[in-house]
Amino acid sequence: MPIADRVRARVIIIGAGFAGLRAAQRLSKLPVDVTVIDRKNHHTFQPLLYQVALAVLSPGDIAQPIRTILRRNRNTEVVMDEVLGIDTGARQVSLASGAVMAYDYLIVATGSTHSYFGHDDWAKVAPGLKTIEDATDIRRRVLLAFEFAERQMLETGSHPPLRFVIVGGGPTGVELAGAISDISRLYMTRDFRHIDTKAAQILIVEGSPHVLGMYPEELQKKAAEQLNALGVQIRCGAHVTDIQPGYVMVGDERIESVCTLWAAGVQASSLGKMLGVELDKKGCVLVDEHLNPKNRPEVFVCGDLAHFEQDGRQVPGVAQPAMQMGEYAATRIGLRVSHPEKAAYQKPFRYFDKGDMATIGRKAAVARIVWPFHADWSGFLAWITWMVVHIFFLIGFRNRYAVFLSWAYTYIREEDGVRLIVGSQNLPGWERLVEAEDRRAS
Amino acid sequence: MPIADRVRARVIIIGAGFAGLRAAQRLSKLPVDVTVIDRKNHHTFQPLLYQVALAVLSPGDIAQPIRTILRRNRNTEVVMDEVLGIDTGARQVSLASGAVMAYDYLIVATGSTHSYFGHDDWAKVAPGLKTIEDATDIRRRVLLAFEFAERQMLETGSHPPLRFVIVGGGPTGVELAGAISDISRLYMTRDFRHIDTKAAQILIVEGSPHVLGMYPEELQKKAAEQLNALGVQIRCGAHVTDIQPGYVMVGDERIESVCTLWAAGVQASSLGKMLGVELDKKGCVLVDEHLNPKNRPEVFVCGDLAHFEQDGRQVPGVAQPAMQMGEYAATRIGLRVSHPEKAAYQKPFRYFDKGDMATIGRKAAVARIVWPFHADWSGFLAWITWMVVHIFFLIGFRNRYAVFLSWAYTYIREEDGVRLIVGSQNLPGWERLVEAEDRRAS
Repeated sequence: MPIADRVRARVIIIGAGFAGLRAAQRLSKLPVDVTVIDRKNHHTFQPLLYQVALAVLSPGDIAQPIRTILRRNRNTEVVMDEVLGIDTGARQVSLASGAVMAYDYLIVATGSTHSYFGHDDWAKVAPGLKTIEDATDIRRRVLLAFEFAERQMLETGSHPPLRFVIVGGGPTGVELAGAISDISRLYMTRDFRHIDTKAAQILIVEGSPHVLGMYPEELQKKAAEQLNALGVQIRCGAHVTDIQPGYVMVGDERIESVCTLWAAGVQASSLGKMLGVELDKKGCVLVDEHLNPKNRPEVFVCGDLAHFEQDGRQVPGVAQPAMQMGEYAATRIGLRVSHPEKAAYQKPFRYFDKGDMATIGRKAAVARIVWPFHADWSGFLAWITWMVVHIFFLIGFRNRYAVFLSWAYTYIREEDGVRLIVGSQNLPGWERLVEAEDRRAS
Repeated sequence: MPIADRVRARVIIIGAGFAGLRAAQRLSKLPVDVTVIDRKNHHTFQPLLYQVALAVLSPGDIAQPIRTILRRNRNTEVVMDEVLGIDTGARQVSLASGAVMAYDYLIVATGSTHSYFGHDDWAKVAPGLKTIEDATDIRRRVLLAFEFAERQMLETGSHPPLRFVIVGGGPTGVELAGAISDISRLYMTRDFRHIDTKAAQILIVEGSPHVLGMYPEELQKKAAEQLNALGVQIRCGAHVTDIQPGYVMVGDERIESVCTLWAAGVQASSLGKMLGVELDKKGCVLVDEHLNPKNRPEVFVCGDLAHFEQDGRQVPGVAQPAMQMGEYAATRIGLRVSHPEKAAYQKPFRYFDKGDMATIGRKAAVARIVWPFHADWSGFLAWITWMVVHIFFLIGFRNRYAVFLSWAYTYIREEDGVRLIVGSQNLPGWERLVEAEDRRAS
């Protein structure tokens, strides 16, 4: 029977991140009809988002339209829309535009968002980094902080200390800290007349005893050393109790901050709730060994949104497990559609851990390599490895060459390329910073 | 007497467009202190802004921080601030931050903005193209129009005609029309499943009898032919009487429009008024043969903001005259500071017209060349010339190579590179478009 005449199974994938895209690619050659739904028109390569925030890369370098990525997949269509409800009984998804779509199999891979631990008002003062919009907002705030100091110098002859506080010492916090150090120590030094950009202070506030908690102790130490060499201060075991424009409270201590960034907590996307199944306390969906929530064998949850335990630990919410989960779910759907008798014998999902990497700054990084050999690297070698791997995983030829050339340019010229402030030209909380400065001066 | 011991003249330049930057560069080697004030942190290469709007280039490709451009000029400082008032009597400029700066010489080069001819409410529905923010807004609207049509097809099996209406047939209108034609006929055709992007209609509504009014008649005809070949319709001698979400009124006729763009009128920047001198009806400052307003020999007005007549015609508001004016003003300030006796003999300003160019689309353009030889070109040759000239005039090595590579990529792959929708994912006027569609369907 030709494929076209079969009653083909309908697969809906919600979210075109690493998990969703990988699943879509895998399903492209199977006798199913695939619909990919995403709120955005583009896939974002999140591991490089911090470089967009710190003006090394342009948004277009790390994002690509989902339609373009999937356009060769003849069985796939892309719908740019927001999911408002999932009816797992009727097997239907309802969209913001009013459309209702039926599925035989559903892959939910909508990832995670920031969690301010119940202090949602902090979001305005201390933005996190998940989307292109977040990245350009952070870029605006960091650059405006320098512009603001220059203006203050011109008017009053002094300015508040250029202190950047980063809440959270995981990979994102460490990357942001290193990148702010690079920009202030190297790329902007020649541009200002009145302020010394090198005098910028960067502080990471981390609640746990170490930065980069998921890395081996040796690498944590190396990371802390490299951060210190870049002039980044680290306060571990310290808890932020309040964030306001111009300052951060750590315990009872008030720390002045011209720009505060949030890299501390994540919570699962709200779509997990719509499934009506058991969630963990971050809102992640508890899934079994086939990535299905309990009693829902036709629903797969992949990526950051899934709570999957392996060897007694939750698989981390990063790109590699997301891709492997997407691939597993797609394979399983393929088996159940074409060879249902074999599906019962499919091995359970198992995350194949190749390792982790985090950059710290120019020529500084840590890498925990598990595959194809075991090694813990830090410094220049880890940094080079990090770059090669990230260029390799970027989607699309254009992005790869654009990022490569931007990195080469930044490395050789010691200059970033896209230091543009777009959108509002006012620093958030500007008035209060001015007031604070007035008080300080008087 | 060494320069450092002189009482140096203070020059303030307001606006870092083509005129302001050129003046600053020229003043960099003269014994004066220069302050460049701009609301934005970046200079925008406006001639390529439409390519940012139509997803060929990234904002970072055509913009660069003013500080970076001028960082080698040791006598120059850059202030990112907004001018709120100019006191030409006291020779002072007051800024939004509260600072007041004194000058001996002032160059005002703040350019122009859109004019909606008294219908400022149209601005929300039909954005114009002057800034990076405008460009990303237009990109969002154009791309969302296609997304919206695809979604409508999916839900109802039909969609309103994909008609883009461009008000104004000057260079910007023609460039936008051609670029929308390129994107719909070439770059997006493989990405959508339900709509035929090639069916997009593009309409230019122009009040005068011809598009590209400032060009010789022969080139106007050639431009119209090339536009028609790209599927762009032109209505000349037609006046827009209303613009609402979903439609445009041309005279009494209602024309449905999924996306309306404004390329019709400009008015001078509001800073002209602050000088308290005579303005023309667009708000441009009437200047004499030395680019000074009447009785203000220490004030120079350059670029689009200046109304300068030569051979009975106003010099056009484009890049070339702006640069020449900036250079002239700087030279004159230099003379008056160092050789006041010679200033009286300086030749009056005269615009040296090298010609004009406008692209229409892929491989289509018109060029009126006056220097170094006389020629009227159209088609492929004009298009190549346009590209070479624009690459040459781009500021900064990085921008030049980035734009060159993006163009090469787009030309060879027939694919644009940065088709990202950022910001709100809702189409402006979306609800009313949906209503209109519901009425059409019933």
